[in-house]
Amino acid sequence: MRYHHPEREQLRIENVLTALGSPVRLAVVRVLDAGGEHNCTSVLTLLGVTSKSTMTHHWRVLRESGVIHQEPSGRENLLRLRREDLDARYPGLLDTVLNGALDDEKAEAARERPRAAR
Amino acid sequence: MRYHHPEREQLRIENVLTALGSPVRLAVVRVLDAGGEHNCTSVLTLLGVTSKSTMTHHWRVLRESGVIHQEPSGRENLLRLRREDLDARYPGLLDTVLNGALDDEKAEAARERPRAAR
Repeated sequence: MRYHHPEREQLRIENVLTALGSPVRLAVVRVLDAGGEHNCTSVLTLLGVTSKSTMTHHWRVLRESGVIHQEPSGRENLLRLRREDLDARYPGLLDTVLNGALDDEKAEAARERPRAAR
Repeated sequence: MRYHHPEREQLRIENVLTALGSPVRLAVVRVLDAGGEHNCTSVLTLLGVTSKSTMTHHWRVLRESGVIHQEPSGRENLLRLRREDLDARYPGLLDTVLNGALDDEKAEAARERPRAAR
């Protein structure tokens, strides 16, 4: 079964923001953005997520917002980030968000450090 | 009653994205970004929203994500966009999103035009 994907022109900023606005989906996007070939299983392994069923919803949100492309291949689903489409429609958005996620991590690590030192 | 607002350092990209990822909340942000002094009623009037109760949730999401500041003043709530905090934590994000919303509108208008001409 092939999945439906919105065309580049059909992307809507609020759908993209909603798709990116969840820790687990943002983590998926960061894995895909780092490069390499990925399928659902390899992404979940990297993220340490064991429940495939809870991910079904997340794949759909990412796919239907136009953030990822998901294509069946054998018993697996190949995944790729639709960076070209996102960059064409919303220049700078993806990088800004990915940098923001990195910045959040650093800020959190800086807050955790003094506590760990006690 | 004063509302709780997260400090700049407590902002999280996924909360900000979730807050911006709804048509009505994005519309609120666009109104506030256009400038001028606003309270909840004046924003709702501009947006043509008549149901105050459905907005309670939206104000909370915008406030708790750090996107807006909401302060009681008499019988009203004064509103302002926390642009300085957002720009400091996520440089370029707000402008990218606002431009994206504008681009979506243009793309939609372009799609509507041929249909209206039929």
